Amino acid sequence: MRALTDTPLSGDEVARINAYWRAANYLSVGQIYLLDNPLLEQPLRPEHVKARLLGHWGTTPGLNLIYAHLNRVIRQRDQDVLYVTGPGHGGPGLVANVWLEGTYSEVYPEIGRDAVGMRRLFKQFSFPGGIPSHVAPETPGSIHEGGELGYSLSHAFGAAFDNPDLVVACVVGDGEAETGPLATAWHSNTFLNPVTDGAVLPILHLNGYKISNPTILARISDEALTKLLEGYGWTPYLVAGDDPKAVHQRLAATLDRCFDEIGRRAEGVRPPMIVLRTPKGWTGPKELHGRPVEGTWRAHQVPLPDARGDAEQLAMLGAWMRSYRPEELFDPGGAPRSEITDWLPAGTRRMGATPYANGGLLTRPLELPDFREYAVKVDMPGAQTGEATRVLGTFLRDVIRDNAPYRNFRLVGPDETESNRLGAVYEATGKAWHAVVEPTDVNLSPDGRVLEILSEHTCQGWLEGYLLTGRHGLFSCYEAFIHIVDSMFNQHAKWLKVARELSWRRPIPSLNYLLTSHVWRQDHNGFSHQDPGFIDHVVNKKAEVVRVYLPPDANTLLSVADHCLRSRDYVNVIVAGKQSAPQWLSMEQAAAHCARGIGIWDWASTDEGDPDVVLACAGDVPTLETLAATSLLRLYLPELKVRVVNVVDLMRLQPVSEHPHGLADPEFDAIFTTDRPVIFAYHGYPWLIHRLTYRRVNHPNIHVRGYKEEGTTTTPFDMAVMNDLDRFHLVMDVIDRVPGLARRAAVVRQTMVDKRAEHHRYVRETGVDLPEITDWLWPADASA
Amino acid sequence: MRALTDTPLSGDEVARINAYWRAANYLSVGQIYLLDNPLLEQPLRPEHVKARLLGHWGTTPGLNLIYAHLNRVIRQRDQDVLYVTGPGHGGPGLVANVWLEGTYSEVYPEIGRDAVGMRRLFKQFSFPGGIPSHVAPETPGSIHEGGELGYSLSHAFGAAFDNPDLVVACVVGDGEAETGPLATAWHSNTFLNPVTDGAVLPILHLNGYKISNPTILARISDEALTKLLEGYGWTPYLVAGDDPKAVHQRLAATLDRCFDEIGRRAEGVRPPMIVLRTPKGWTGPKELHGRPVEGTWRAHQVPLPDARGDAEQLAMLGAWMRSYRPEELFDPGGAPRSEITDWLPAGTRRMGATPYANGGLLTRPLELPDFREYAVKVDMPGAQTGEATRVLGTFLRDVIRDNAPYRNFRLVGPDETESNRLGAVYEATGKAWHAVVEPTDVNLSPDGRVLEILSEHTCQGWLEGYLLTGRHGLFSCYEAFIHIVDSMFNQHAKWLKVARELSWRRPIPSLNYLLTSHVWRQDHNGFSHQDPGFIDHVVNKKAEVVRVYLPPDANTLLSVADHCLRSRDYVNVIVAGKQSAPQWLSMEQAAAHCARGIGIWDWASTDEGDPDVVLACAGDVPTLETLAATSLLRLYLPELKVRVVNVVDLMRLQPVSEHPHGLADPEFDAIFTTDRPVIFAYHGYPWLIHRLTYRRVNHPNIHVRGYKEEGTTTTPFDMAVMNDLDRFHLVMDVIDRVPGLARRAAVVRQTMVDKRAEHHRYVRETGVDLPEITDWLWPADASA
Repeated sequence: MRALTDTPLSGDEVARINAYWRAANYLSVGQIYLLDNPLLEQPLRPEHVKARLLGHWGTTPGLNLIYAHLNRVIRQRDQDVLYVTGPGHGGPGLVANVWLEGTYSEVYPEIGRDAVGMRRLFKQFSFPGGIPSHVAPETPGSIHEGGELGYSLSHAFGAAFDNPDLVVACVVGDGEAETGPLATAWHSNTFLNPVTDGAVLPILHLNGYKISNPTILARISDEALTKLLEGYGWTPYLVAGDDPKAVHQRLAATLDRCFDEIGRRAEGVRPPMIVLRTPKGWTGPKELHGRPVEGTWRAHQVPLPDARGDAEQLAMLGAWMRSYRPEELFDPGGAPRSEITDWLPAGTRRMGATPYANGGLLTRPLELPDFREYAVKVDMPGAQTGEATRVLGTFLRDVIRDNAPYRNFRLVGPDETESNRLGAVYEATGKAWHAVVEPTDVNLSPDGRVLEILSEHTCQGWLEGYLLTGRHGLFSCYEAFIHIVDSMFNQHAKWLKVARELSWRRPIPSLNYLLTSHVWRQDHNGFSHQDPGFIDHVVNKKAEVVRVYLPPDANTLLSVADHCLRSRDYVNVIVAGKQSAPQWLSMEQAAAHCARGIGIWDWASTDEGDPDVVLACAGDVPTLETLAATSLLRLYLPELKVRVVNVVDLMRLQPVSEHPHGLADPEFDAIFTTDRPVIFAYHGYPWLIHRLTYRRVNHPNIHVRGYKEEGTTTTPFDMAVMNDLDRFHLVMDVIDRVPGLARRAAVVRQTMVDKRAEHHRYVRETGVDLPEITDWLWPADASA
Repeated sequence: MRALTDTPLSGDEVARINAYWRAANYLSVGQIYLLDNPLLEQPLRPEHVKARLLGHWGTTPGLNLIYAHLNRVIRQRDQDVLYVTGPGHGGPGLVANVWLEGTYSEVYPEIGRDAVGMRRLFKQFSFPGGIPSHVAPETPGSIHEGGELGYSLSHAFGAAFDNPDLVVACVVGDGEAETGPLATAWHSNTFLNPVTDGAVLPILHLNGYKISNPTILARISDEALTKLLEGYGWTPYLVAGDDPKAVHQRLAATLDRCFDEIGRRAEGVRPPMIVLRTPKGWTGPKELHGRPVEGTWRAHQVPLPDARGDAEQLAMLGAWMRSYRPEELFDPGGAPRSEITDWLPAGTRRMGATPYANGGLLTRPLELPDFREYAVKVDMPGAQTGEATRVLGTFLRDVIRDNAPYRNFRLVGPDETESNRLGAVYEATGKAWHAVVEPTDVNLSPDGRVLEILSEHTCQGWLEGYLLTGRHGLFSCYEAFIHIVDSMFNQHAKWLKVARELSWRRPIPSLNYLLTSHVWRQDHNGFSHQDPGFIDHVVNKKAEVVRVYLPPDANTLLSVADHCLRSRDYVNVIVAGKQSAPQWLSMEQAAAHCARGIGIWDWASTDEGDPDVVLACAGDVPTLETLAATSLLRLYLPELKVRVVNVVDLMRLQPVSEHPHGLADPEFDAIFTTDRPVIFAYHGYPWLIHRLTYRRVNHPNIHVRGYKEEGTTTTPFDMAVMNDLDRFHLVMDVIDRVPGLARRAAVVRQTMVDKRAEHHRYVRETGVDLPEITDWLWPADASA
């Protein structure tokens, strides 16, 4: 690992950068500690100090140092730089810089660049009614909260894709570097096009400690660290030291080198990165009560934890803050002196003001072909079969083709695009790949729109970064394994929730999940691949940002996908099948059904407006089993009045008070009745339907079948049987719940039990299911 | 990366190993394809072939090769080896080997080592009523299903900790190697003691392809790969080739070298590992329809997908299977010939029979000190304060101390043990660490019982491996970030569910989570750190394996922890506070309360057996707010008859039909009444309480307050206010829901609104909460 010894800065430049850094550090400490007396015009008294001291000092001087030096580079090269703060707990640092450069006061005019503004800036930090302690959506210039560690580097790459003029400076904390998602994200270079994408400049900040432990990367040898980073495909440069003047020269020289190399970057050349080894809590208190603080984990949060109550600590705080010589940094009115600001970038080159960090400003709506043109022809419900995701693939192919000139759409997935039957996209594009290509490979391309890495974390992180910078995308994933990114979804949903409350943040394209290879058709991989619980996870987040769709066939999937790709600021979860399955709705019907999100399927119903029972379904397999059950009922209990309801938009089930898509009670009651039994066949864990409907009048009569965590390597139908979702069991459920049925019903029930057992025996013997129904028992005009 | 050229095997040894390998490959192919005619005594006909062809061939010959060679090493060195199959989809391979060595037929006598057994072996694979396609709990010798990729290496380390005589051979697929959890697990060496722990021998199997893409590690240069692995702290040896004879010699030489080095391992020496570069689907069909299969991703699953329907493919299948020369491998009765088996390990040295893979066989119950001795003294409810997890820390300290001789307990966490206030454990042990130690470090120790790495994935993987090999542990984690391992929890819960159904698998110690730094007291880190949804995630899994506890104070936490550490085959989720908070129950009361899991707190109630309203609570903060609300009610509405119910064991709320801990309806009704309003203050998302209680008679009257995804950096009380869980709002809820209250209640309600606003103003102004109640309004004999 090379350590450059050039000294590119003049003495004046060192002084300016150092003064700026002192100012940022001063403002950071002020935010953590002070309620008042921001310029230390008076002697520091206890009442100037906050009663609750919250914040993270340890990482902050390093973040400030990097910000200062990037300012120089940006100004010198007129370069767009996005700053991604892996150690997002260093919130006071980023806020300080953004205030110094002026952006903060533009976004929040009440926090001016003067003494009053500084006082407010200090007080609001980590204060009730104020701003969070992290680099949150409230922080101009941020696309990355950094509270949950691990995603900075994949976010940075997501931001860099298709932004060739952008350099994303990504600070990676040495704590964060221990996480799995961060560890594998170093490989993202394999997917970055040095010509058509921007560059990522990782700055691995080794300050040595996490909350209370040393970090691994800070304690392996420089030789091992070099090998590791080179092995990941990078050219690391070391900047180390604890003497500010020397570190300024080294960091400046190294940044110059890195930006030079970035300017010359080309296929096959290992891009540069920086390893910055500086003390944790640098320039803070050296020790407290005889124990070292600076350079140790004790500097992680608030190094003087009792500065309000303990006179010694109060004096230390005063000395610490005065060590930055605030009178040299700010004029008497509290504004930063011109030496601090006159060399900074201007306008949108300021890292706090870059539109890349407020991606909605840059969003170009997708050119979307008419999804109706990709329709599967359906003459009569169930008469044709189709593979829903394969059909969607043709639509996505043309989305990619039509938007190729704008380079603003990416399809990501963990090596499953083909397996999920979206392979038609390869007629329009390839899979991004910048490592060796062998003659047997297919569809690899340096400029592919498809990003495939066997890391759901990286897929998610890339896509989030891409969306947060204003572009569009879709993540296709095996349903069970989307749980791998549960916590990343959480963080993105939380980001969206807060960002929507900030008027200056523009809406960004939604995060779209296509979950396929789902629980009911993972019969070949078995139990470990069967989990429909992501939906449950998603609906815990704010109703305004989550949408869940369960299109039952190809045409409904097309309509839903079109809708999701047009939407903004949501997380859309689409669960759809990939296997060959009966198709139910013509395109026209599908579009109308999806627009309503829920509806009675008259062609499958026999209720004449007054059902004995409602058979509801959500999801492709439950819909199939429900319709098969209705066919059985027509045959065996023709006098029974059955209503079939299909739910595409799951949120329609909730009261309108709980979710913007919720049905008003009269609408819900008109569909589900207020007193008839409802047999609800649902794709996922049954409880969710109860959760969504428990406030409805007819809830006591809703009986739900779904996945109850039974499964193995077996046939599709046997999977349904194992979970009592099969057609025969649904008929049994009807018979068990509809009062006053003819005595014959008991015979029918036994017939169902027998048929179920017969099917089960057949499966166990042959390994395959009985042939699927093809002669559906609905009226000949069912397609009308 | 060194490639050894020694040829340690005699010609006879090569022949034996190769024959064994052919046998394993033959049996693997047979499992994927054949229903009948297992020895190919007849010409292969379509009806001999399964109608559904499911399984993964690509990885299998490599897994078989490694198994064969490990057999030689085990026999030669009389060494215990545990085989961890990262590419768990290679199920047919592991089953084949375990059958060859005889273990399979011992565990499953109906699958004998003869032609009848072989026929059954073949048919059952990936067949309804048979066995899964993966290396599932059903597979003897496995602790790792491998369906969800990423955890093989952390499982391997977990198995190796404190098993100094064990070598864990861990096959890592090059697909799996792209995942984040796997990428960071390479660092686990930093935590492994070369003297007191076993060894992990990773075998990175570069067969080049995932489902449909090349893999990154197979396509970077050998130089880069070497650097990467050396950077991770390993000494990699390369074994590459596609000529079996040469590969046998190279692999044997390399394994000899690795086991020699393992035998000499010492602090500071980079341990050995193997990079095995062989073709995907090696020895399978070379091509199909003119497109290459062997050595490409097309070999991933079933290389001849239509072997039943297509005569050409059927012929190819026959030729493929005959290429292994089955007549040389099996006698006419179908038993493996003695040349195949007479050199294999015997008894429990067989990898399928090792007790390490059936950890319950090795479990020694923990020595548990009497938890009552760690009690916080509670004279009267609320009179004393305590920090629940800090108290637990003293108990855990002595658990560690008392079990030190047996080396069978580990505390894992992502750098949060101290932050979660369990620091007392460092009086008994240190944190494992085998990198550089600086003078400022504290509590680091080469032999520490505490494992801390900033990777929840690695923590979870280590602990799972440790438990699956029969030892005990606890994972303490910030509540919000346990979602990082949602999917790992899923897989472990699924493993437990299936393992419990297998009589030969012995119960293993439970997976214990201590979730603290929870949603209500993450007021300093803010919104990203606030998420109580793990409980919701957990309860989707089988009721038999999940338990959720919400002890409201220190003494209840002690009782719950003691219970969990004694339990087997569960996942126990304990959510507890770490902050200073009022203590409610004496130790005696706490133990009795926890034994019931739910109960009426008479001392806080005024209902005299006939309440006007039930105030229920679960979780420490909701309990505090509920009790404060009852104090307010005593003061303002003394005539109101209030019953206070506290829930420790959340599963008590469910019907007994849904969960073994569920209360029978009469018990539930006796506590919650059948018709009075219930105001339920709950720790997490409110819906869960509805889910758990929706079948109860009084469900329509249950009104739940909980976290509704509102939060930021603010005070504890303000957090409660933001989510309407605060005491004032609970009183308002009571007034809104109890019918027939005196007119004065409206005035009281307004008083609550005013007090709430006053509190809010105070918080926004001062940054701190009003002082906590200390004069609780319950009778002087409340402690009785």
